[in-house]
Amino acid sequence: MDFEFVENKRLKKQLEFLTEIDKMKNVFRRNALVDASRRENDAEHSWHLALYVMLLNEHCSEKIDVEHTVKMVVCHDLIEIYAGDTFAYDTDGYKDKKEREAASADRLFSLLDPDQSLMLRSLWEEFEEKATTESKFANACDRLQPLLHNYLTDGLTWREGNVKLQQVLDRMDIIRQISPGLWHIVKGVVDAYVQNGVLK
Amino acid sequence: MDFEFVENKRLKKQLEFLTEIDKMKNVFRRNALVDASRRENDAEHSWHLALYVMLLNEHCSEKIDVEHTVKMVVCHDLIEIYAGDTFAYDTDGYKDKKEREAASADRLFSLLDPDQSLMLRSLWEEFEEKATTESKFANACDRLQPLLHNYLTDGLTWREGNVKLQQVLDRMDIIRQISPGLWHIVKGVVDAYVQNGVLK
Repeated sequence: MDFEFVENKRLKKQLEFLTEIDKMKNVFRRNALVDASRRENDAEHSWHLALYVMLLNEHCSEKIDVEHTVKMVVCHDLIEIYAGDTFAYDTDGYKDKKEREAASADRLFSLLDPDQSLMLRSLWEEFEEKATTESKFANACDRLQPLLHNYLTDGLTWREGNVKLQQVLDRMDIIRQISPGLWHIVKGVVDAYVQNGVLK
Repeated sequence: MDFEFVENKRLKKQLEFLTEIDKMKNVFRRNALVDASRRENDAEHSWHLALYVMLLNEHCSEKIDVEHTVKMVVCHDLIEIYAGDTFAYDTDGYKDKKEREAASADRLFSLLDPDQSLMLRSLWEEFEEKATTESKFANACDRLQPLLHNYLTDGLTWREGNVKLQQVLDRMDIIRQISPGLWHIVKGVVDAYVQNGVLK
């Protein structure tokens, strides 16, 4: 079965794209669900971040365009459909992350007409560049969520990856830059895991 | 582990809510992923709809507030955390769906301060009431997505539930009302499944 019967070419591309991105539900991240039953996939992670943005934006040090930021987090991991998820503390994986993701973006977004391709690519690029306040806050939420899941799952991915305190602090630094209120949370979580000996 | 160390009560509620809604990732719907490997959960379904809205809104018969509609679909199934998913063609399940969902909404949204509780409840109620153009289009996308997944998975849930043609047409009627372009897709899919004998 495909969409052969759809005569409107633009609509056909849209349906093919919306079908292709179903693969996000099978791109698994390192961090677990809160109940530790399994790893989280990119689609549900992106959904979760949309609610992080909607509920936590008041803690951003500058007022942001919430709706724009929601769209950004919804789209920020789409390129992982072909590039795969790169674990935050995987030094080797980060070496060619940019190239892999750029190739994935070209392949994925070209399924759509140029205007819609550009719309999604712009949201992704804004997220990656971290130049706008909205993208900084989106990145802060993208860091905070797995931190909280680590907090709630006995430091699962930190233990597995033998992650060091300084790596976590470096990774979370964008939160310090953009949100004193949320940075307070990071410090509380990190302190607990320094005390119990997981983060050294 | 909990959020005992968070002194800001409002922020503590937000973190507890964001933790609670992780359960959406374990609320499974009847429809499968496109690759038929497993059922879809509510979190990834809601994420998928956000992209349906972002890419298909031009097919709505009236111009809509896209960003508002994205937020609506992100939140529309939250109440299923306690109420569970009700299969679209489950007549018995629909008898007490409203009561179950209202009780679930009271329980879930009250985890937040009143202003944020109201924000989420309003989005959910707008979706349910189908009075605004935005909510009609959000509902149309919520109907179209599982229809396309049925199309792509050999009519899986229609076969399982012995679903009749008229039930599908009734269920999809909101698409006919709000989007001639997308209705054309519904007709194409339904015709194919009438021809192959699945929908009678």
